[in-house]
Amino acid sequence: MTSQTKKKLTAERINEFTATACGYKLLYATQRIDNETLDALFSLAKERQALEQMNEMQNGEIVNRIYEFPSEERPALHTATRDFFDNPNTSKMASEAASAAKQEVEKLRLFIEKLDAENTFTDMVVIGIGGSELGPKVHYEALLHLSRLGRKVHFLGNIDPDAANAIVNSIDLKKSLILVISKTGTTLETLTNEEIFRSHFAKAGLDPKKQFISITAVGSPLDNKDKYLEVFYMWDWVGGRFCTTSMPGAILIAFAYGFSNLWEFLKGANAMDKIAKSESSKNNLPLLAALLGIWNRNFLNSPLVAMIPYSHALSRYPSHIQQLDMESNGKQIDKHGRRVDFETGPIIFGEPGTNAQHSFFQLIHQGTTTFPVEMIGFKNPQIKHDESINSTTSQQKLLSNLLAQSLALAAGQKDSNPNKNFPGNRSSWILLGDELTPYSLGALLAFYEHKVAFQGFIWGINSFDQEGVQLGKKLATNILKIFAESQNSHENEDPLLKALLNHLES
Amino acid sequence: MTSQTKKKLTAERINEFTATACGYKLLYATQRIDNETLDALFSLAKERQALEQMNEMQNGEIVNRIYEFPSEERPALHTATRDFFDNPNTSKMASEAASAAKQEVEKLRLFIEKLDAENTFTDMVVIGIGGSELGPKVHYEALLHLSRLGRKVHFLGNIDPDAANAIVNSIDLKKSLILVISKTGTTLETLTNEEIFRSHFAKAGLDPKKQFISITAVGSPLDNKDKYLEVFYMWDWVGGRFCTTSMPGAILIAFAYGFSNLWEFLKGANAMDKIAKSESSKNNLPLLAALLGIWNRNFLNSPLVAMIPYSHALSRYPSHIQQLDMESNGKQIDKHGRRVDFETGPIIFGEPGTNAQHSFFQLIHQGTTTFPVEMIGFKNPQIKHDESINSTTSQQKLLSNLLAQSLALAAGQKDSNPNKNFPGNRSSWILLGDELTPYSLGALLAFYEHKVAFQGFIWGINSFDQEGVQLGKKLATNILKIFAESQNSHENEDPLLKALLNHLES
Repeated sequence: MTSQTKKKLTAERINEFTATACGYKLLYATQRIDNETLDALFSLAKERQALEQMNEMQNGEIVNRIYEFPSEERPALHTATRDFFDNPNTSKMASEAASAAKQEVEKLRLFIEKLDAENTFTDMVVIGIGGSELGPKVHYEALLHLSRLGRKVHFLGNIDPDAANAIVNSIDLKKSLILVISKTGTTLETLTNEEIFRSHFAKAGLDPKKQFISITAVGSPLDNKDKYLEVFYMWDWVGGRFCTTSMPGAILIAFAYGFSNLWEFLKGANAMDKIAKSESSKNNLPLLAALLGIWNRNFLNSPLVAMIPYSHALSRYPSHIQQLDMESNGKQIDKHGRRVDFETGPIIFGEPGTNAQHSFFQLIHQGTTTFPVEMIGFKNPQIKHDESINSTTSQQKLLSNLLAQSLALAAGQKDSNPNKNFPGNRSSWILLGDELTPYSLGALLAFYEHKVAFQGFIWGINSFDQEGVQLGKKLATNILKIFAESQNSHENEDPLLKALLNHLES
Repeated sequence: MTSQTKKKLTAERINEFTATACGYKLLYATQRIDNETLDALFSLAKERQALEQMNEMQNGEIVNRIYEFPSEERPALHTATRDFFDNPNTSKMASEAASAAKQEVEKLRLFIEKLDAENTFTDMVVIGIGGSELGPKVHYEALLHLSRLGRKVHFLGNIDPDAANAIVNSIDLKKSLILVISKTGTTLETLTNEEIFRSHFAKAGLDPKKQFISITAVGSPLDNKDKYLEVFYMWDWVGGRFCTTSMPGAILIAFAYGFSNLWEFLKGANAMDKIAKSESSKNNLPLLAALLGIWNRNFLNSPLVAMIPYSHALSRYPSHIQQLDMESNGKQIDKHGRRVDFETGPIIFGEPGTNAQHSFFQLIHQGTTTFPVEMIGFKNPQIKHDESINSTTSQQKLLSNLLAQSLALAAGQKDSNPNKNFPGNRSSWILLGDELTPYSLGALLAFYEHKVAFQGFIWGINSFDQEGVQLGKKLATNILKIFAESQNSHENEDPLLKALLNHLES
């Protein structure tokens, strides 16, 4: 295989190694890959029935399972939460799920219409953690330029009392909706923070019934119209980290930016869903991206991926992809309960460009560990006001940096001073869109969701459970009991816990 | 060597593997280490003259250099920017530097007194990127609970036009100070964003001379009292990522929280500086931490480190440590210009706990790549208001999670269902403080600065330059010229650039 040797970067190569879908171009000529390797990777996808598995997922078959062992045994039907457009999935499960999801979207439309007519609320506090918070938050932040009526959303995920106090001190409770999100209705952080807000409401003489909303599963403790102004539903076939197009994400976009922007967002995600399940060429961007990722992870041995959005609006986007990817594919047991004998999901981290260039790009260019860089850019800014300083606009300066880094990583720089010598051959790609709109944001989300799913399918792991998240919850509950039962004496406890707790108190 | 085998975690081990300095405890019993290994690591430090090199650095000797090749040839005297307390460094260079730094601090004190008396300004916009932005920003955010007079600071680092517009739309220009930070006075992003703000001032009929401040080196284009209300100085012996206790960080803390809080912050950093240069035991926390890091990186082969602050106020703190560590130690050339034959600086990433537990902790517990987790926690919250829900406070719930994760990572969990089985033996530590105050925040900053420096000393690399950051700047400038010269035709260009630019325009 010649692909690990350095291929000359030419204009022809740049044009050849370009794929297109849903208004995005993936420029991947600066990956360490050639056509022979690409063909082999697409054969691997075929052998592992990646496309068939994607169709099974979108059709609502039970893909969240470990065969031969007790497991969640559920579909992963996040695609149904936006399957409202042309040519929907027609399987029974998928169409029933889409219809349930559509009903919630319709309920949301009416709810927002009423809010708009009454115009009482200026702020929304989202109480939720993990998937209920991160995806909704970064997508809300990505569209801030569409803000209407000055409405703001605040996020309270962590259990830290300083986090709750900071929000309470910055809003007018009378004008705030409190949105509580927990599928099971039992998440420690969320229930605690809800109680804190209920206690603030009581002190202020406000009626929580008129201002608290919940998003939860049917029948959970939060599914209670006596306690909440409105209850929206989520289902066990949508995992937390895949919930951004269901109610937790949808309500924020509709509240802050209006229902029509939500509709465009869902439409963009749906368009990429269709690409993911139907295209078997390199223009299936999520599949191509998944295969390049597998090449980097399993063949070039990169333990991690840096994700660099050249877009202020996507500053914290890498934190969502980090959760999506690492929680889904950070697994070592395959779908049959066997220990895998290859690497699975990589570590994902990132900060926006150009900021990151002034920070950890030092290590990317000259460190001892090499890994691929995934860059995202847009031809046009979101806000149309841009200034020309020294004959170029800020947007041109931003894009110049994006292109420059991609070339610098690939080509390096020869210098007789070893400290100014750059080895190059550092792998990267540019995912290039026209402009970050609700539609293109939806397509971007689905691109990453399906990239992650394809990798899980090919590795043969279950990307849809998260046992590693459950373990810590259980242990924390045990320690909490000790705090609750014996505030200052730890006589009857496990000596380990006792030693640790003594350090907390001395 | 037995250290790679699993040591039983006992109460005795927890107490034995604890070190203390400046109000912090480092609990490191859950590292994969024993006394034999620790002794060997301290011998390595001695052999590499780590403590001597720390003293040379704090004394102002030329530590930023590559022997036998042209290099920056400078001291790295960030410790001088807080050497105003008991037993200062007495070397000529260090005391001259401290005296220059003290002069700026005194100038700042008078400047803030005047601002307070006039009380015209409610907001400050910081225009700077890289080290000029990130350290100052996360330290400003860590102390938000001390906010006085409602003063707010906004940060504009990136060149993205959407970033500048978002700030302009959210402040009252009349009441805003614009702080421009660039040591050389030539940073593309910073100069562009300054011009954008000058143009907004011109449109609003405001006089920039009354509201623009600069922080720069003596003699730079920004050192101009005709253009700025005040000019503060920085020096070539303080690198960007080490500048938080010099003017770029100091002015924000003094403006938003008052001069006395700045003084406490400097005092905390100075206290840790003294520990770093004098203690040769494990209570030299930065040295101990550096050695544990080397153990994980070079002997246990971990390519990365996760940093998890269980503190809302430190939510974005990992981004600063990421820059500090990866820009300093992401090097492959040693101080004599030779390629190193071992791994140097690891990749650092992180998000706050408990949030991260609901996200990428899945991979930490059950992924195929293992790496150490550095947790930070405080016994008490910053804001004294805390509620007891189900018999425990939020702070107790937060700390329960911190302890639980440390134990879960170490011990794992046996289960006959392989998907619920956790191998354990995942390395971690807890850095535990009493409360996050200006003093303890200063000590925390210096702890990480010296951890990074010690690792550089032991690896024999120059932690104080950043050639990898320079390369991209040069290339971006070339591409900008093309944008500026031939807006829509790329006839005379490099075919590579032409191919890329065509993708931007089609």
